[in-house]
Amino acid sequence: MTTITDEMETKARAAKAASRQLAKLSTQVKNQALLNISEALKARQEEVLEANDRDYSQGEREDLSEALLDRLLLNPKRLEEMAKDVGSVVSLPDPVGEVFDMRTLPNGLQAGKRRVPLGVIGAIYESRPNVTIDIATLCLKSGNAVILRGGREAVHSNTALANLVRDSIAEAGVPREAVQFIENTDHKLVSQMLAMKGAIDLLIPRGGADLIRRVAEEAAMPVVTGGIGVCHTYVDKAADPDKAVAIAYNAKVQHPTVCNALDTILVHSKIAPAYLPRIAREWAKAGVEMHCDRRALSILGPLEGLRLKPSTEDDWGKEFLSLVAAVRVVDSLEEALEHIETYGSGHSEAIITEDYSAAMRFLDEVDAAALFVNASTRFTDGAQLGLGAEVAISTSKMHARGPMGLRELTSYKWIVLGTGQIRT
Amino acid sequence: MTTITDEMETKARAAKAASRQLAKLSTQVKNQALLNISEALKARQEEVLEANDRDYSQGEREDLSEALLDRLLLNPKRLEEMAKDVGSVVSLPDPVGEVFDMRTLPNGLQAGKRRVPLGVIGAIYESRPNVTIDIATLCLKSGNAVILRGGREAVHSNTALANLVRDSIAEAGVPREAVQFIENTDHKLVSQMLAMKGAIDLLIPRGGADLIRRVAEEAAMPVVTGGIGVCHTYVDKAADPDKAVAIAYNAKVQHPTVCNALDTILVHSKIAPAYLPRIAREWAKAGVEMHCDRRALSILGPLEGLRLKPSTEDDWGKEFLSLVAAVRVVDSLEEALEHIETYGSGHSEAIITEDYSAAMRFLDEVDAAALFVNASTRFTDGAQLGLGAEVAISTSKMHARGPMGLRELTSYKWIVLGTGQIRT
Repeated sequence: MTTITDEMETKARAAKAASRQLAKLSTQVKNQALLNISEALKARQEEVLEANDRDYSQGEREDLSEALLDRLLLNPKRLEEMAKDVGSVVSLPDPVGEVFDMRTLPNGLQAGKRRVPLGVIGAIYESRPNVTIDIATLCLKSGNAVILRGGREAVHSNTALANLVRDSIAEAGVPREAVQFIENTDHKLVSQMLAMKGAIDLLIPRGGADLIRRVAEEAAMPVVTGGIGVCHTYVDKAADPDKAVAIAYNAKVQHPTVCNALDTILVHSKIAPAYLPRIAREWAKAGVEMHCDRRALSILGPLEGLRLKPSTEDDWGKEFLSLVAAVRVVDSLEEALEHIETYGSGHSEAIITEDYSAAMRFLDEVDAAALFVNASTRFTDGAQLGLGAEVAISTSKMHARGPMGLRELTSYKWIVLGTGQIRT
Repeated sequence: MTTITDEMETKARAAKAASRQLAKLSTQVKNQALLNISEALKARQEEVLEANDRDYSQGEREDLSEALLDRLLLNPKRLEEMAKDVGSVVSLPDPVGEVFDMRTLPNGLQAGKRRVPLGVIGAIYESRPNVTIDIATLCLKSGNAVILRGGREAVHSNTALANLVRDSIAEAGVPREAVQFIENTDHKLVSQMLAMKGAIDLLIPRGGADLIRRVAEEAAMPVVTGGIGVCHTYVDKAADPDKAVAIAYNAKVQHPTVCNALDTILVHSKIAPAYLPRIAREWAKAGVEMHCDRRALSILGPLEGLRLKPSTEDDWGKEFLSLVAAVRVVDSLEEALEHIETYGSGHSEAIITEDYSAAMRFLDEVDAAALFVNASTRFTDGAQLGLGAEVAISTSKMHARGPMGLRELTSYKWIVLGTGQIRT
């Protein structure tokens, strides 16, 4: 049994109490709180940047990698972007109170569902301090209290940001206690959070695969499983080669360190001799390393200027998060479907084809959060798919699948309006 | 760590494999399978009743209570009702394949969601053998495979029914393996089921409070928490007394052994002297025992022919599942709201009032799966609320809340139709 310390108990209880008040707040009050946060991110820059300096210097002393240091870094420009993002949450519709599926039943009862917040969201995340603002604002707008637990490396930045958020919302009349921040960086606190079923209604892990796996395995409460994307793009024999080059290039190169980037390209053998050299040359210009199966290698091997390696079994089903792509030639749509079923992580999968039946079959048979026909897997994103923003991408089938925006942070209650009806 | 036996492993693997085929079946094939089950419940009566006889005699030898024996009992009439219920699932719309929230994004991408089955549903239930048919048919129609684990007392009946289902669906071309039944009544098998995260996508417990609590606490996978209903009806000072009598009578008496029956009635002090004697006399005719607080007792005590007891703290928040009601007089809507927040189980709560603001406040502030204005809590039921049927009633806020019908047994995948779009 994990022992819950007083600190956690107190914070969880305060969050739960605040969540009840939060559920009743008007959109106006919540939006004012968001505007205050946005303002404060500009007005209190100095304080935040000072705290970030301490984290950054500490990170340098501990020899953090360039990439980690870059994630950690805040500067006036980044703070301004954060302020702008908060502003854009203001303009999103408030999901709370929306009534849907309302209808009049044969006996005259009017029955439907009204959206309500989930309650208390727990968030466990790693080095990026902007996640503090990101998750706090989305939880706030959706009427949820939140308990934040950021990474050790960013603790001073996160503390400063959490204080800023709490002050800003209090000015708007939202209880400070709606946003709880765990300053204690002891790893035991994570285990405690994961054990607090009932106190935390939903847990969102944001970070690397290890964190996400740990949370999914250990958490006693519902968890958004996701964030790990082994994404395939299948270039069908009936693909438009221009589209296939543009899409595969975009999916791999535009932002290679994120979960919806291309990991494996599957190319039909009929189109491979013409297509593979084209995409390989484009990728090579961007520095992409290709891990090729035997048949892909026999096509690309003779070409100059490519970064090629023979693939190993490890390459299939691997999330590269870098400028590496696995390449395999297949003889049929079936073979591509089987590969995706075997190695996919249920995140984002794409087919490039002009063949109607192939497209339909792909949509029917692939089991993943998001399926694309003739588009880049990079579109699996709350903002891109019209949700406005996202707290996470779920690869679970329960509750919500794919990008989770404000609506996905809510539940509903049935409301039934009668005139004296009884059941017979 | 719970060790998973070969039997469970094999059945779970078979169910998962079948679930992939099930997801692709047409509504036509699934409906034919349901019609076959409905037919077989008539054609194979003898075999099922014989098996039920063995359970019933065993139950008598073990001195099971009248109520348990009645739940266990099958007869030609009950089998006919079961066959009719299966037939009505045929006429329900198939949720699988429904496309919703589809829209065209500014870049021309068409993005929306398509409903898909959850995968493998696990069901753990107690003595009623009709649950075998009930859950199997709803899972089948929603494209899910199912692993059934019924109670020890009904094992012969359940085995016969499961065989009947498997034969019937196979005749329609649905894989037999889509319906798995655990004949082994060892309690360890339940622990094994609860540990099989990944193999079972959603677990549905159906039975008494102990079973439901055990499953909610132990299960590694998502669970439908629910089935425990501590239901309040608040009779406001502005209640129409006739409606209040009819509704409270219905909510308590029409079917007292179920989760949506009235447990506590809260009566405003202004209306109590006129109202309480009326409902008490009606309830008394039906044999209802009333556990009254001091003030209710002072009103009802002088009357003849009532079954009254002074309430104890235990009565508040108790699910009676019998002809007992707790009665409390309150001085305000606030007091009623507080009582419900303290003692409710988040299932079904009702207000009886003609006061618009009181009704609105009740709907705003009470946090439960289903809220009623001027109607009986007995309407918290899939069939009554227009879902056609239900597998369970959820009091959780995740995934689905309230009655869970076919749609609530599904997830969705995003489908995104492009013409070469890339992310910029």
